[in-house]
Amino acid sequence: MSSNSPKPNNRTILLFFFFFISLIFPFFLPVFVNSSRTLSLHKSKLRFDDGQNLTFLWPLPSQFTSGNQTLTVDPNLSFVFSGNGGRSSYIVEEAFQRYKNIIFKYSSKVSKSGVVYDLQKLNVIVHSDNDELQLGVDESYSLLVAKNYEHSIIGEITIEANSVYGALRGLETLSQLCVFDYGAKTVLVFKAPWFIQDKPRFEFRGLSLDTSRHYYPVDVIKQVIESMSYAKLNVFHWHILDEESFPLEVPRYPNLWRGAYTKWERYTVEDAQEIVSFAKMRGINVMAEVDVPGHAESWGKGYPDLWPSSSCTEPLDVSKNFTFDVISGILADMREIFPFKLFHLGGDEVNTDCWNSTPHVKQWLQDHNMTTKDAYQYFVLRAQEIALSHNWTPVNWEETFNAFPSKLNPQTVVHNWLGPGVCPKAVAKGFRCIFSNQGVWYLDHLDVPWDDVYFAEPLEGIKDASEQQLVLGGEVCMWSETADPSNAQQTIWPRAAAAAERLWSNRDATSATDTNSSTLNRLEYFRCLLTRRGIPAAPVRNHYGRSPPTGPGSCYVQ
Amino acid sequence: MSSNSPKPNNRTILLFFFFFISLIFPFFLPVFVNSSRTLSLHKSKLRFDDGQNLTFLWPLPSQFTSGNQTLTVDPNLSFVFSGNGGRSSYIVEEAFQRYKNIIFKYSSKVSKSGVVYDLQKLNVIVHSDNDELQLGVDESYSLLVAKNYEHSIIGEITIEANSVYGALRGLETLSQLCVFDYGAKTVLVFKAPWFIQDKPRFEFRGLSLDTSRHYYPVDVIKQVIESMSYAKLNVFHWHILDEESFPLEVPRYPNLWRGAYTKWERYTVEDAQEIVSFAKMRGINVMAEVDVPGHAESWGKGYPDLWPSSSCTEPLDVSKNFTFDVISGILADMREIFPFKLFHLGGDEVNTDCWNSTPHVKQWLQDHNMTTKDAYQYFVLRAQEIALSHNWTPVNWEETFNAFPSKLNPQTVVHNWLGPGVCPKAVAKGFRCIFSNQGVWYLDHLDVPWDDVYFAEPLEGIKDASEQQLVLGGEVCMWSETADPSNAQQTIWPRAAAAAERLWSNRDATSATDTNSSTLNRLEYFRCLLTRRGIPAAPVRNHYGRSPPTGPGSCYVQ
Repeated sequence: MSSNSPKPNNRTILLFFFFFISLIFPFFLPVFVNSSRTLSLHKSKLRFDDGQNLTFLWPLPSQFTSGNQTLTVDPNLSFVFSGNGGRSSYIVEEAFQRYKNIIFKYSSKVSKSGVVYDLQKLNVIVHSDNDELQLGVDESYSLLVAKNYEHSIIGEITIEANSVYGALRGLETLSQLCVFDYGAKTVLVFKAPWFIQDKPRFEFRGLSLDTSRHYYPVDVIKQVIESMSYAKLNVFHWHILDEESFPLEVPRYPNLWRGAYTKWERYTVEDAQEIVSFAKMRGINVMAEVDVPGHAESWGKGYPDLWPSSSCTEPLDVSKNFTFDVISGILADMREIFPFKLFHLGGDEVNTDCWNSTPHVKQWLQDHNMTTKDAYQYFVLRAQEIALSHNWTPVNWEETFNAFPSKLNPQTVVHNWLGPGVCPKAVAKGFRCIFSNQGVWYLDHLDVPWDDVYFAEPLEGIKDASEQQLVLGGEVCMWSETADPSNAQQTIWPRAAAAAERLWSNRDATSATDTNSSTLNRLEYFRCLLTRRGIPAAPVRNHYGRSPPTGPGSCYVQ
Repeated sequence: MSSNSPKPNNRTILLFFFFFISLIFPFFLPVFVNSSRTLSLHKSKLRFDDGQNLTFLWPLPSQFTSGNQTLTVDPNLSFVFSGNGGRSSYIVEEAFQRYKNIIFKYSSKVSKSGVVYDLQKLNVIVHSDNDELQLGVDESYSLLVAKNYEHSIIGEITIEANSVYGALRGLETLSQLCVFDYGAKTVLVFKAPWFIQDKPRFEFRGLSLDTSRHYYPVDVIKQVIESMSYAKLNVFHWHILDEESFPLEVPRYPNLWRGAYTKWERYTVEDAQEIVSFAKMRGINVMAEVDVPGHAESWGKGYPDLWPSSSCTEPLDVSKNFTFDVISGILADMREIFPFKLFHLGGDEVNTDCWNSTPHVKQWLQDHNMTTKDAYQYFVLRAQEIALSHNWTPVNWEETFNAFPSKLNPQTVVHNWLGPGVCPKAVAKGFRCIFSNQGVWYLDHLDVPWDDVYFAEPLEGIKDASEQQLVLGGEVCMWSETADPSNAQQTIWPRAAAAAERLWSNRDATSATDTNSSTLNRLEYFRCLLTRRGIPAAPVRNHYGRSPPTGPGSCYVQ
């Protein structure tokens, strides 16, 4: 969406110039001749015994050409950072170490003596020194992998990007091109030379995790975020709180986390900061959610005044200023933790019966000449004002839009979930929208197979280009009623990857029905890549999400 | 079994002397008075909102006393190694760093200024400099955690052990005593002072993983081994090969791993060495298995001559010397990887029909005047000879014992699986035995609840003390027909922990039926500890193994 192609520097222009020259003049670099071609993955016949046909990438880059060379990669691959992005180079340097560990995991850690490797150096060029991670940050990158010939200046591996976050995406792509060859015991890049120019289709590519229905230790949240980066997802929507538990420390209201299940199932401010920082190092934003006025019963364990009464405990008491003081306090404390521009205010599934049945609230409604429906609107809008006062853009679940579209702050991002057709209505009224249709993108719906996830389309029903621009992207949701640290990752993966490609890759290249079988093979390859990285991704062909394989067999065909 | 209590050095004798003096003379160290007592976990009422009642250990140490003090632990805890075990101190030092990361995961990484912590130093005393890890290695240790009083020399944390592997067990116990307090944001030890003298009940406490029915990447195997160390299991039985796939590289017969599912689902020699080394650093032996003559169909993909015929492919062809040459070659190559004294030769579930129906094998049987039953015995014994020639102690599944007990090499370790009652028969004939009754200790039997695993008893039916000594221990088995990297860990945990306590802890302290409810709470606590360490252990109260929680709730009560 908002991503631009990186502006190449002179050296890179020269590299790419020679690269394209080589395509035009066969005699110049004969090895490239007849080999570079647009990879037509859905036409290639998959043979799992033939590595050279199998350089799969997930999600599919927007533009790429490849050849038919096989290049060796030096385990001592060196790293050179250049460009104006020096201030933020630590982000790329740390990522380089992570990816080096991934790429050379199964290989000898040192170069073999006497062996001259084709690829010995990785150049990363970053043009901007702004390392602020935000919605719409430039994630585009170019990646060139080509052999260094004696009489050619084409050489090494080059990633060029406008921001460090684009460089991170390029590193992920590079890591997927590098395959350990068990015969030669060497890391190889098949089908070189590669020239990839890539950028995301949508700027918001999210995954939510509900840490209220079950508590997830910080290490597990980090595992989820780490795995998101492998699929180039970029927003971790942290549904921290809900009616069942309030695990987060709020210094201004220190009794709130008494609503945690136990004294250990909690997140300190430092825990949350660490999660945000861990995510930023992987180019992933953290969008926090404080769901009001429903889904908030747990708040009252620390402050019972937030309940309409001790016997009628949801939604939050709309009649008291104290309620909004607490929301203000929570948001003020969270503002210091979560720098992301979007803040989720929930607003879904509000049953207002308690307001009507609790005498003092009912009286308040009468005094203010409000129905419960009016009071719901009043609550949501007042919460929006608090978020806006903290310079946050409010996100609300679609019920708020469905109930009072003309009253919502125009900055509001409408978060679809109930079904199809909401984003078209929201963007028609000028709102931005996030697509999470539960029929396809709720990961706890275990009966949704990978292809239903894959072929879901955030722009479905939106023809107008300017309206399409208002769809920020989409999000798969991991609700935790029956998921916990023991099974969330295999509920998330591989189906979240299907959505990740939908959100990253060109619609045309990934929408034709005849891509189905090759996409399936590519997704199976990615699922096995996840397991190699220690992520317990479930078999792709499962009839139900996260179910076990039905019998012995290869990872690549299950 | 073979573990002895560590021989304390003078300094430690002094420490322990003062500790016990304090118990006898209340005025000497009054804080210990009336507080140190043998912890009676099954009598304590569990309150999850009260950390001080909740210092749970798993598996239960053999002897321990505790008090009622709460001590703070310095995030900059220093580490001092002493004793004769200097040569092997790197094992403890690396473990100290691992455990420091675990203990201070949720805490500030640096000491708070102005705060004086009660526990600032960890002394580890190791008496032996022999770091060879073998069956029966001394895993005993003493652990003293007590406050440093101005006029007392009692101080710090002291772990004393005869071997580095005992010190590792002590570090695990210490890590379980350290609890992060979310209120104070400090790591605390409740119920101090602690004095623990601990050693395992059985010397063989195993977990097997079948990497043939599904391939497990090296990282996943490491995750399994790491988690085993948390439950003080000490033998990783690697069922590498089976009829479905042959993933291991065998330099002497380089076509064998053509029997892998794909060219990526393989283990190089270096991979296997890395697994052995990773396990050793955690005090875990790796027992490799080459299952013959059945369960070996995959061998013939590289060497079809190993099959009786191309249409009748199991068991291995008993009639050819080539078959035994290949076994010799495999074992010779594996001997360089696996230093553990025990080597598993399988021998189970052999259907000899192919031998009878393949003309050249049938002819060979007739020439040698053998029935197929004789040939099965001939094969097993010849394989045993090969293992013995490599100075390996052969382990065989119980079918070999059931079929020809008097012929087996007397060194043979009989591995029970089919049902109860085998170990009593085996030890009565002087064989050693490993207990893995499938009705209780096969983890792929998902209908076995935690308490059936827990109350299984390896010495069931064995009264004679000298015969009891022949039971090396037991093993829980993770077969992979319907398990793979996406779900093995939650199939293994928490039920493997139930077996781990049976194998480590005193029978008396863990066998009474009235321990049931407190044991359940302690196991739930351990399950949550595993999730905190990033291990996806399933809810304890699941009706079926590895099934999801049935609704929202705390980790500690599911």
